[in-house]
Amino acid sequence: MSKYKALKEECFEANMQLPKLELVIYTFGNVSAIDRDLGVFAIKPSGVPYTSLKAEDMVIVDLENNVVDGKLRPSSDTKTHSYLYREWEEIGGICHTHSTYAVSWAQSQKDVPILGTTHADYLATDIPCAPPMNDALIAGDYEHNTGRQILDCFRDKNLNHREVEMILVGNHAPFTWGSDAAEAVFNSKILEEICRMAYITLSINPDAHRLPESLIRKHYERKHGKNAYYGQK
Amino acid sequence: MSKYKALKEECFEANMQLPKLELVIYTFGNVSAIDRDLGVFAIKPSGVPYTSLKAEDMVIVDLENNVVDGKLRPSSDTKTHSYLYREWEEIGGICHTHSTYAVSWAQSQKDVPILGTTHADYLATDIPCAPPMNDALIAGDYEHNTGRQILDCFRDKNLNHREVEMILVGNHAPFTWGSDAAEAVFNSKILEEICRMAYITLSINPDAHRLPESLIRKHYERKHGKNAYYGQK
Amino acid sequence: MSKYKALKEECFEANMQLPKLELVIYTFGNVSAIDRDLGVFAIKPSGVPYTSLKAEDMVIVDLENNVVDGKLRPSSDTKTHSYLYREWEEIGGICHTHSTYAVSWAQSQKDVPILGTTHADYLATDIPCAPPMNDALIAGDYEHNTGRQILDCFRDKNLNHREVEMILVGNHAPFTWGSDAAEAVFNSKILEEICRMAYITLSINPDAHRLPESLIRKHYERKHGKNAYYGQK
Amino acid sequence: MSKYKALKEECFEANMQLPKLELVIYTFGNVSAIDRDLGVFAIKPSGVPYTSLKAEDMVIVDLENNVVDGKLRPSSDTKTHSYLYREWEEIGGICHTHSTYAVSWAQSQKDVPILGTTHADYLATDIPCAPPMNDALIAGDYEHNTGRQILDCFRDKNLNHREVEMILVGNHAPFTWGSDAAEAVFNSKILEEICRMAYITLSINPDAHRLPESLIRKHYERKHGKNAYYGQK
Repeated sequence: MSKYKALKEECFEANMQLPKLELVIYTFGNVSAIDRDLGVFAIKPSGVPYTSLKAEDMVIVDLENNVVDGKLRPSSDTKTHSYLYREWEEIGGICHTHSTYAVSWAQSQKDVPILGTTHADYLATDIPCAPPMNDALIAGDYEHNTGRQILDCFRDKNLNHREVEMILVGNHAPFTWGSDAAEAVFNSKILEEICRMAYITLSINPDAHRLPESLIRKHYERKHGKNAYYGQK
Repeated sequence: MSKYKALKEECFEANMQLPKLELVIYTFGNVSAIDRDLGVFAIKPSGVPYTSLKAEDMVIVDLENNVVDGKLRPSSDTKTHSYLYREWEEIGGICHTHSTYAVSWAQSQKDVPILGTTHADYLATDIPCAPPMNDALIAGDYEHNTGRQILDCFRDKNLNHREVEMILVGNHAPFTWGSDAAEAVFNSKILEEICRMAYITLSINPDAHRLPESLIRKHYERKHGKNAYYGQK
Repeated sequence: MSKYKALKEECFEANMQLPKLELVIYTFGNVSAIDRDLGVFAIKPSGVPYTSLKAEDMVIVDLENNVVDGKLRPSSDTKTHSYLYREWEEIGGICHTHSTYAVSWAQSQKDVPILGTTHADYLATDIPCAPPMNDALIAGDYEHNTGRQILDCFRDKNLNHREVEMILVGNHAPFTWGSDAAEAVFNSKILEEICRMAYITLSINPDAHRLPESLIRKHYERKHGKNAYYGQK
Repeated sequence: MSKYKALKEECFEANMQLPKLELVIYTFGNVSAIDRDLGVFAIKPSGVPYTSLKAEDMVIVDLENNVVDGKLRPSSDTKTHSYLYREWEEIGGICHTHSTYAVSWAQSQKDVPILGTTHADYLATDIPCAPPMNDALIAGDYEHNTGRQILDCFRDKNLNHREVEMILVGNHAPFTWGSDAAEAVFNSKILEEICRMAYITLSINPDAHRLPESLIRKHYERKHGKNAYYGQK
């Protein structure tokens, strides 16, 4: 077990950020962290409240969804996580919440339009909302198919998962990812704030315009482009 | 008195969750817990602020609304609690709040449509809003009749109180219940969050669709069905 | 000075509730408390932030607005307080805030309709919004005239200040009062919550109905009527 | 370095107010403070989270944007700050946030109408929203041009920067200023609250009227006019 200790710790710390950032209540949500060398990821156990969660409770699962280590049952969303880890080899962490504003946009089944620089600082497109699954997908391997639905949406919209690290699943809730679990959680908080601002903006002005492409590129590139000058690196 | 000590403690702890969960201010709301063997329930005393509430203040009442133990007057809503306990023998706790979003839906006199999986994780139908009472019922035994109004609504809409553990009373506020007082409080918090999300969703998209039946059953069954795989049991 | 010590303490404690209850930021708002025997009231000094406020800073003013005791200048709204104290002999405390939802209703220049029992538990009518003052009143003794505007509104709408302990002044903000300063503050918090619920209710259902008179009387009387049975008295 | 110690401290303290006042998350926003005698200003380093910020991290920059002291890269918005300091010689501090309601108004590209006395207590006009920059300005020296856009807006609307200490930049976010860094931050919080109230007001009543000029002058003058009687000075 000791070889999974660091991975469990990373996963635990990231999960514990969710209630602190007011992205979850009770047992809502889950974060995972992958160790690509070991070929396994740590994930929150299913239905355990954050108030009693411990690092040793994290469940170690391989990419075929077999529990490798841990006494508890892994998150019911485990197959969605493993699907994304298999398909997207560069990502190191995944976060799923039921945060209020992101869920509300997911329930509205609308992409979140890029209305300002707060949004453009993190991604250069609307935040995609994958359509709800059809009945056959729901009746099948549901959580596996949630991953598939996310990939299909990225393919249909021609999005790059390294540039767009968040999605809303229609009728359901957001998933975000990043280079590690902490970054995945960070993206969930950013997403929630962008969703809240977009909701208020469109209440003030239903005809608010998307950002012009020039300003999108400017803000995105100054943080993420070749000549980025935001931050200390 | 010692034979009611545990019941009073359970009731007190559940009541004290209400301000912590931001479901009440001042003296709003009340929670009760029943001991079926003793045939009595403990309930918050009327009009006492949570900041000065003590476990020994809980009032013990029998199912005919007689105070059996306690120095204080029980909640003015006591007859609604006893009505539900008499009619629904499986429930162990009841919670009544005036939480912001649930009250707002009650005041709007609309059922809360099932718009997403956050909702379907807890119940498989819209959240019912019982119609306001007519003048005769109001002028009669008001709190008793509130219980009757709830039962009538469940009968009219063909709902099962073991599957739907929450209701809005039109023009008034929510009531929730569960296997014990803590679960009743839990359901009040979940209700508040669902109400908030539904409000924002319909502000973003007034034409947002109810969840398809397939997805409702999927999410409800994975937590509450025979083959449930959410959680640790 | 010692004869004003208790009055200053009461006034200070009530003022300090305002930031705790999230009804003010910085120097917004003010509370006063009157001693009818001494014929003076204590009031918050003008423009002093709550974070540095001390009980001894409270200013003692008589009913003709003369400062009787204290080193600081009294609230710029002092003349509104004295006006109300002179006209309404039964009240013991007055509270003025710029709380978010109450101000928003005041700015909308609409009475807050009585939409539910949360409202009816405290007053049996819509919450009145006094019309904004005309230019002559504004150019005159403004704060004095604010008091006059409040009295005029109560007379025009045939309201009783012992039954309705709150008002919105159009374009401005709320004033509330009560038997003492603590009750005046309590009414400001209740008002804010009612305003918030009414706003959300009408967003969900713009056609939401006012409460029927029977239910208004029922809820109001069970707390405030001759045969009241809410609370411990 | 010791000669910049006080300036760095002032700047640091002002920056640390932003998360406390809930105006920023993570690394959002930045505050600067100028020493006119030394001809330099201190500003938050770029991309450093508030949780790990230290006074010694503040970067000292001259009015031509040269780093004079400090190991870190200054805020990416530094050129906007220096532009404003050069043009407006009386200001001592500048604050930039991405607070929720102010950003939402900026994204809606609307001036915030003066709807009540809370607004008039701080400025006597609508809060200006500068139009988004055109593509040439964005492609040019973007942050420099943001300052220019602010000045152009003030000139076009004939506003005085000593009377109006806040602006929204369309599609982007607010900038505020004041006699020192603390006052700039204060204005950002006031702005956020005014924006929130205006949003709710117009949701309640889309036809809410701007304040009459008489009331605007009354409230503004009683705080800021020659015969001001608000506060202790």
